[in-house]
Amino acid sequence: MSKNLLDNISNPSDLRKLNPEQLPELAKNLREFIIDIVSTKEGHLGASLGVVELTIALHFLFDTPNDLLVWDVGHQAYGHKILTGRKDIFHTNRQFGGISGFPSRKESEFDAFGVGHSSTSISAALGMAIASNLKGEKEKQHIAVIGDASIASGMAFEALNHAGVSKANLLIILNDNAIGIDPAVGALKEYLTKVKSDRKLAAQNNIIKALNFNYSGPIDGHNLPKLLTELERLKSVKGPKFLHIITTKGKGLKKAEEDQITYHAPGKFDKISGERIKKEASLFTKYQDVFGKTIVELSEKNDKIVAITPAMLTGSSLNLMLKKFPNRTFDVGIAEQHAVTLAAGMATQGLVPFCNIYSTFLQRAYDQVIHDVALQNLPVIFCLDRAGLVGEDGATHHGVFDLAYLRCIPNLIIFAPRNEIELRNILYTAQLDLKQPIAIRYPRGYGEIIDWQNPFQEIEIGKGICLKEGNTIAILSIGTVAEKVSKAIDIFEKENTSSLIAHYDMRFVKPLDENLLHSVFEKHSVIITIEDGVIKGGFGSAILEFAAENGYQNKIKSLGLPDNFIEQGSKERLLLKNGLDSRTLSEVFSRLI
Amino acid sequence: MSKNLLDNISNPSDLRKLNPEQLPELAKNLREFIIDIVSTKEGHLGASLGVVELTIALHFLFDTPNDLLVWDVGHQAYGHKILTGRKDIFHTNRQFGGISGFPSRKESEFDAFGVGHSSTSISAALGMAIASNLKGEKEKQHIAVIGDASIASGMAFEALNHAGVSKANLLIILNDNAIGIDPAVGALKEYLTKVKSDRKLAAQNNIIKALNFNYSGPIDGHNLPKLLTELERLKSVKGPKFLHIITTKGKGLKKAEEDQITYHAPGKFDKISGERIKKEASLFTKYQDVFGKTIVELSEKNDKIVAITPAMLTGSSLNLMLKKFPNRTFDVGIAEQHAVTLAAGMATQGLVPFCNIYSTFLQRAYDQVIHDVALQNLPVIFCLDRAGLVGEDGATHHGVFDLAYLRCIPNLIIFAPRNEIELRNILYTAQLDLKQPIAIRYPRGYGEIIDWQNPFQEIEIGKGICLKEGNTIAILSIGTVAEKVSKAIDIFEKENTSSLIAHYDMRFVKPLDENLLHSVFEKHSVIITIEDGVIKGGFGSAILEFAAENGYQNKIKSLGLPDNFIEQGSKERLLLKNGLDSRTLSEVFSRLI
Repeated sequence: MSKNLLDNISNPSDLRKLNPEQLPELAKNLREFIIDIVSTKEGHLGASLGVVELTIALHFLFDTPNDLLVWDVGHQAYGHKILTGRKDIFHTNRQFGGISGFPSRKESEFDAFGVGHSSTSISAALGMAIASNLKGEKEKQHIAVIGDASIASGMAFEALNHAGVSKANLLIILNDNAIGIDPAVGALKEYLTKVKSDRKLAAQNNIIKALNFNYSGPIDGHNLPKLLTELERLKSVKGPKFLHIITTKGKGLKKAEEDQITYHAPGKFDKISGERIKKEASLFTKYQDVFGKTIVELSEKNDKIVAITPAMLTGSSLNLMLKKFPNRTFDVGIAEQHAVTLAAGMATQGLVPFCNIYSTFLQRAYDQVIHDVALQNLPVIFCLDRAGLVGEDGATHHGVFDLAYLRCIPNLIIFAPRNEIELRNILYTAQLDLKQPIAIRYPRGYGEIIDWQNPFQEIEIGKGICLKEGNTIAILSIGTVAEKVSKAIDIFEKENTSSLIAHYDMRFVKPLDENLLHSVFEKHSVIITIEDGVIKGGFGSAILEFAAENGYQNKIKSLGLPDNFIEQGSKERLLLKNGLDSRTLSEVFSRLI
Repeated sequence: MSKNLLDNISNPSDLRKLNPEQLPELAKNLREFIIDIVSTKEGHLGASLGVVELTIALHFLFDTPNDLLVWDVGHQAYGHKILTGRKDIFHTNRQFGGISGFPSRKESEFDAFGVGHSSTSISAALGMAIASNLKGEKEKQHIAVIGDASIASGMAFEALNHAGVSKANLLIILNDNAIGIDPAVGALKEYLTKVKSDRKLAAQNNIIKALNFNYSGPIDGHNLPKLLTELERLKSVKGPKFLHIITTKGKGLKKAEEDQITYHAPGKFDKISGERIKKEASLFTKYQDVFGKTIVELSEKNDKIVAITPAMLTGSSLNLMLKKFPNRTFDVGIAEQHAVTLAAGMATQGLVPFCNIYSTFLQRAYDQVIHDVALQNLPVIFCLDRAGLVGEDGATHHGVFDLAYLRCIPNLIIFAPRNEIELRNILYTAQLDLKQPIAIRYPRGYGEIIDWQNPFQEIEIGKGICLKEGNTIAILSIGTVAEKVSKAIDIFEKENTSSLIAHYDMRFVKPLDENLLHSVFEKHSVIITIEDGVIKGGFGSAILEFAAENGYQNKIKSLGLPDNFIEQGSKERLLLKNGLDSRTLSEVFSRLI
């Protein structure tokens, strides 16, 4: 790239040496820099392009990192990272050993709060602002930048409700681009849309004002002079204040502006034309599409089926269902708690609700799963997408706790399919006439079977299966990690006899197939459990409980993820690091023989 | 009681035979009935007295149970229970084997949705309303009754946000009495207060209208003719609608109206005067007060300490802290998610936040504990009140999942005090200079030590202790169940030699005291773990994991709560039922020798 203003900016103190008149040019440079890197290294594009001007204005006017700036979710923080000392390593974004795709306190003092899941920024910034009050730091500024999809989540409302009666020096900036990953939904979004075109509504009948905020806006978030003027003014306004800015997601790249859903995270693309560089077509199907296509197929025959997603319509492939059955598909926005209890309400009336939530986001609705679904034994079908390691999104997004946190819930069936066919068949089974809730957890990304669209077969609840007979060691695996195990056994058997290891896919973490387990424990001296989730409290732990209850003295080894947060990186790389690759597994088998 | 209108009402069809003019008299009868029973049997008084007229009006006008009525939380549903077939067993309310203190689908077809935790009603009723739409049941009515404290919770906002853009035939009734258990807080509450006195605000600048609801009110919720007229009108209004009624908590009992906090659940009282019948003063102190007094004591010396409660100021005894340090005590309303992330934000700025949340309600903030606190390793001090069995509140409120769902979270210390002194000392230890988060879980109710207010002693993190030496069996207990174990050992030793059983209080579920465990496993052939939480994934499971990792072959028996939801009843009765009383424990010891 040719020499430009960004070259001289290593951190915000450099930025502050520019004249305000130079900032639009810097915005252009920053945008180009983001496009340049993300076009080849991949990442979240649209959100960061939309806040380039805001990012510059904030670091120009405020005394970061002393003033505290919290980005909600963090998809939009690429510009922030580049301006705060990470320009030269930005090309390592989201890679193993590189910088995180999200703000992270470990990474930089400019990242006041680590994020990833949505709608935490107001609570966090309010906590900081209250702390400053108590410490008598009257000049310190506290800023939360939050999108219109994120602010509609319950947690953000709770924070607004508290902030409105606090005396905290808190500035909330609503980055209103009318889209999350999919278009924003809900009554608040419709209201905000009206506000944008109706100055009187903004001035008078204003929800935010009603909650005691000093509201200003809406203003054009790409107009740097306006942003600077308004932010400068707000600096000296006391108490909770709220600036509503309007931005365009993907701003500055035509293709990204036109197709905002795709360009949220477009993969590689041509940095001039914006054309996406198509990956070689896979022979295989993503688990997401197996889910999406199967639920459509099932819904054609069973008119009681409904589907619910909290704002992950495209990511979960429920857009396929929406297209076919718009009246039976519900995108409720970033509202996991509501999604689960809505499903419970539907189930009381005889509907068959599929509630599709990413494993990591179901943590947001844990109480609702226990209190509204399981306690009443309502047959809600939870589809936990992106279970296990998710790859480049990293620590905030790995779905590795689900088996542990779900296993203690009475009445709940827990199933993890080994492959696409098993996923398809458990979806079929779940909607037949289950009298209790079920959680089905499956990974992000492609499977390994071409012909998975076979006739449906019912799966007997609580039945595991033997994938391979053997004598000494029995491996009990759960979910798609079975495939790593099979390969590990192949490696092992090249160097050993072939009759030593048996392999069972337990399928159900709950209820356990106790008949099968008795025969396994009687036949094999060593048991190895393998899961792509945390060991503490997980599937392996269930097997230990079974063994203790039944007085078995077999040697049991539990493999899975350790008791620490796992960083970002490709799934394969992370499995390798944590000893769940086939080579390492085969070595473990050798040591245990 | 003298003969009255209520005598002839077994269910709503009887009620509907009355003339509207008779309903105020029925209200009087129903109120007297509630007071009569609750004054001797105890229970939640104030909320139910406040909605007597509403309850009658709803069952009179709507076709329950075909029309679906969901009570939020359910404290207010006593009148509903009495009018819907449970009059004659209402005296068994909250008792073991009796009816639940909350609506429950198992109990009656009139209880459309089981409740207990707050703010679920709108989601559930919306789910039902959408189901009716899909089924073409156009006349069916769906009603959620929710209080002003509950509607300020994030989950309720998520449901409003969805309902506002639905075509669902949903009526939300806001029962606005300006109080939850403690006075309601927050910007929304202040707004609602303004609406009540400002008709123009209600008519024009209206948050609820802004969310697309057909808003009506506010009207006097004790005026039956007005209620009937307005509810009748709303029956034929299409789409989402919202009726704002104003009621007085404790209505009809002077004392209860005057002291609404105490009379939320006043214990026994004189039914005429309302005077509470004082229980004999206990020599002992509630764990809640041990917490409340200790945090005040610590806050006097450590000015970085702040305390947060989501709407449980009195229940948690944080009202003691509020009185002494109003600026450092934060009641954030029913907002567990916000409470946790607020604490995280405070911790980033060097404050020492004590976040006191009932064990069962921390389920509402599970993601925030993982994602905002533990992942960033912020030293938030979680005080999990009402852990273990809570008694009469029953299945919705037992805090029995915490050890299982917290144990899988990296960086988190988990401690359960054996007694008041241990609680006091861990609170002291936690605020010294912990570099990571800690969860301290303790039970509801009284301890057993008179002189617990000793000089503070630091507890070494991860250290268990031996309470009694012994040879064959080692009992590892966690938390206050230690006392049952001690008594069980006493019983056992009356019939056996005294050197057989050792007893260890492990104190920390995480990190485990591995040194101690090695010596225990080497010395004793049989290990028994005991906890007052679910066995699946809990403390016992942690010990099994330790044994497996280290290749120990000792016989291990895990005692705790089974894999089903536990009903209501006195704590002692429930422990007995689940085999955790001293007599049963001693018998288990005998069998294992």
